[in-house]
Amino acid sequence: MTGGDRTIHRKARNYRWEGVDELPYKEDDRALFKSITRQVLFADPQLNGELRYFEVAPGGFSTLERHEHMHAVLILRGSGHCLVGREVRRLNTNDLVTVPALTWHQFRATHGEPLGFLCMVNAARDKPQLPSAEDVTKLQADPEVAAFLRNAPKTG
Amino acid sequence: MTGGDRTIHRKARNYRWEGVDELPYKEDDRALFKSITRQVLFADPQLNGELRYFEVAPGGFSTLERHEHMHAVLILRGSGHCLVGREVRRLNTNDLVTVPALTWHQFRATHGEPLGFLCMVNAARDKPQLPSAEDVTKLQADPEVAAFLRNAPKTG
Repeated sequence: MTGGDRTIHRKARNYRWEGVDELPYKEDDRALFKSITRQVLFADPQLNGELRYFEVAPGGFSTLERHEHMHAVLILRGSGHCLVGREVRRLNTNDLVTVPALTWHQFRATHGEPLGFLCMVNAARDKPQLPSAEDVTKLQADPEVAAFLRNAPKTG
Repeated sequence: MTGGDRTIHRKARNYRWEGVDELPYKEDDRALFKSITRQVLFADPQLNGELRYFEVAPGGFSTLERHEHMHAVLILRGSGHCLVGREVRRLNTNDLVTVPALTWHQFRATHGEPLGFLCMVNAARDKPQLPSAEDVTKLQADPEVAAFLRNAPKTG
């Protein structure tokens, strides 16, 4: 799907949508993420927001990052955990997650099933920032956050 | 939930979300809609879009209307039908619907189960327009549209 394609109905089948490309999550040689795909469900010049679907395979995770723009997330499939700031939360289907500006965040499929989520963002937005080694050390100072980053969250 | 409340996690339970009010759909004395509720999942001054959840009880329907702003819809629960322009479509869970500018549209829970859908819109948007009697007559000229408006769609 390209921006401005106003096909009125796209059938869903197992979390793939007709005419919507499944995209590699990001182009990067570093192992900053694992087993995650992206589908852009709505991106149109007349919309000020975009709606994307990300799916993390069991054991996979999104990039640990932050940015000026907010994320508004709804868990569409499965369960897992997220980190938002220094908060680790167990996520279930249909839960909502708000990621405020400049807040470190990551999503992990920690429960042996995919974690699929919708993410609404502003169409005009800044690029993500990656953590420095010092940032990671600071995050790891909290035992709960450190466990999450080892893919072994303590909650749930 | 009020705009700008950045609670990071809201648990879902049976399509209700913690801290999110279930709102009457619209204030109107005319019977233009039936058995529909609204929850505003994300509305924040830093977001250029809003994400709302509407749920139509079995046999219910949303207002037949049009407006300049677009709707970007994902069916979150159940099944039903929609009208977009002169197209009647059978909808299943996770299907996407795009409602272009100034296009008559309506959602109906036609299958004995609730029809729940997410709707992304621009935060800044115009008010809906209602059809005149003449508009309705024009729509009813198409037998498939007429059947949909009688809550008896022919498709699916």
